[in-house]
Amino acid sequence: MIDLPRTVDFDGSKVILVDQRKLPEKLSFLECENVDCVADAIRSMAVRGAPAIGAAAAFGMALYAAKFKGNSNDFLKGLKAAADKLRSTRPTAYNLFWAIDRTLRSVEGSVDVDEMKLKVINEARRIAEEDVKSNRMIGKFGYKLIKEGFRVMTICNAGSLATVWYGTATAPMYRALEEGVNFEVVALETRPVLQGARITAFELSRAGIPVKLIVDGAAGYVMSHLGIDLVITGADRILADGTTFNKIGTYSLSVLAKEHGVPFYVAAPTSTFDLKSKPDDVRIELRDPKEVAFIGNKRIAPEKVEILNPAFDKTPPENITGIITEKGIIEKPLAENIENMLA
Amino acid sequence: MIDLPRTVDFDGSKVILVDQRKLPEKLSFLECENVDCVADAIRSMAVRGAPAIGAAAAFGMALYAAKFKGNSNDFLKGLKAAADKLRSTRPTAYNLFWAIDRTLRSVEGSVDVDEMKLKVINEARRIAEEDVKSNRMIGKFGYKLIKEGFRVMTICNAGSLATVWYGTATAPMYRALEEGVNFEVVALETRPVLQGARITAFELSRAGIPVKLIVDGAAGYVMSHLGIDLVITGADRILADGTTFNKIGTYSLSVLAKEHGVPFYVAAPTSTFDLKSKPDDVRIELRDPKEVAFIGNKRIAPEKVEILNPAFDKTPPENITGIITEKGIIEKPLAENIENMLA
Repeated sequence: MIDLPRTVDFDGSKVILVDQRKLPEKLSFLECENVDCVADAIRSMAVRGAPAIGAAAAFGMALYAAKFKGNSNDFLKGLKAAADKLRSTRPTAYNLFWAIDRTLRSVEGSVDVDEMKLKVINEARRIAEEDVKSNRMIGKFGYKLIKEGFRVMTICNAGSLATVWYGTATAPMYRALEEGVNFEVVALETRPVLQGARITAFELSRAGIPVKLIVDGAAGYVMSHLGIDLVITGADRILADGTTFNKIGTYSLSVLAKEHGVPFYVAAPTSTFDLKSKPDDVRIELRDPKEVAFIGNKRIAPEKVEILNPAFDKTPPENITGIITEKGIIEKPLAENIENMLA
Repeated sequence: MIDLPRTVDFDGSKVILVDQRKLPEKLSFLECENVDCVADAIRSMAVRGAPAIGAAAAFGMALYAAKFKGNSNDFLKGLKAAADKLRSTRPTAYNLFWAIDRTLRSVEGSVDVDEMKLKVINEARRIAEEDVKSNRMIGKFGYKLIKEGFRVMTICNAGSLATVWYGTATAPMYRALEEGVNFEVVALETRPVLQGARITAFELSRAGIPVKLIVDGAAGYVMSHLGIDLVITGADRILADGTTFNKIGTYSLSVLAKEHGVPFYVAAPTSTFDLKSKPDDVRIELRDPKEVAFIGNKRIAPEKVEILNPAFDKTPPENITGIITEKGIIEKPLAENIENMLA
């Protein structure tokens, strides 16, 4: 059993989150007793990673429900306000909207307030459990891509700490570890927020997988000189044609993988798919320039310089070898096989 | 006149260096009164950038000469010891060895110790002056590549602060500015040491050129979404076939430029050329993992994780559009035109 905590949990009266802003220095937990606290945790990236954000938002809805006292009309009004609050935290992660909508839909047809409360709470718990189960399935389908002696590259953290447990991009790695495959991982540190250094390197080494950490700019050098056998990344949103929105740097990595003939896989649950949007419809979140200008309290850029801080980029389907989901691996042609699998 | 200080200077008894470890917080100067101090400054990257390192080492030799008291035999012995000390600081920068060798050769044929002292000092001053002149010429040949309205991308700092003055990759930019061309620069922050954020963004904005700063991982996104018209990088060493060793991340950037059809130019004086070595002969300096694990005093990677910190990478000639030197722009076929120009 991989020795990693649950990233997001709900004990009936509190939402409990691994506070990822404190990693790798210490593994500590944030306990939220109201929706504002959960929304702040998502906005400030105490919790991050699309599936973990989805589960945290769902548990935020459950927290509202658990604490609510009053009639069903007021309950529904407050539930929608909680949904709006949680939705406004991050614009790109599709799972966020998907998880909130599921908890909202769960009360449809109910009139009794206690029944509605229970339905929201149960739906949130289901979302979290489905996430773990789905990650296990991603691991089961994906681990065979990792052969004995492989060196696997990943960016950002689509790990256990980006999900409720076990991770998406890391699921094939954890399963391969459980199956006794010897391999190592090269983790890109992933500026500006350094999720690769702070989180992926932390969780993989804690789980017992050998990790080499590099700066993002070294990816090309490592591919050409050390050799990489496989790239696995997560996804924040995948469109019907396979276009993948993921952490800034993913697109560059996909170009490098193509140049070096390295298979480039995206690992994500099918809840990450957004079959309606077109590539140009999706707004790329521009985050606070301070993420780039400061590391901790240290200013690393001059005060008057303009900083562009896009949080995500867009990898076109032609750069993607396949998509590992809980229902199986989607191979090329991606658009056709996505349609077949999700229909 | 571009408002930037001399990076490296010698006043007859002290070597005076801009202390680049303090940038962008403050512009301060390090004054060295002995060779050890100069060697430490190079090793610790208080001074960095191939031409500035070369000039600093030459001034280190001049400092030895200026301070020496004794006979010519002892002078030569000490001069060689100073050369060895300065040579041992950084393994990749070709200018370092080239500048030290020039000061050594300058005393050949002399027997009088005062004459030898003067020759070393004069040779060092010549190296510094030639650098400024050569950068001006790089600017003169290169600025026509920068058309009105262009967005130019650069990595690391091959700027004025990487040379004695005016820079190599920045020389075409400063000249274009002097010629009244409107353009902007996208600077990659360049982990791990962040020369792009700390130094390039500082000097370009101080000189009055609009700069946008991005993380290294955003280069692909910016090329595909915002558009880049031209890439100009510096070089630490260029081989006879055009293979270019430069800051880690340069190779990845060259692959992205090729993918997006963006012209990729290297700007460097001909003293950067090493016509003897083959691509596999050049050792890539692996620097202290702490550069990656810490930013300032803040630890950003877990303690037990292995870190690979290659300082440079190798860009093959097929990814390079041309090389801007003080003798003109070397176009493709690079190997042939390098031979013609340097013969």
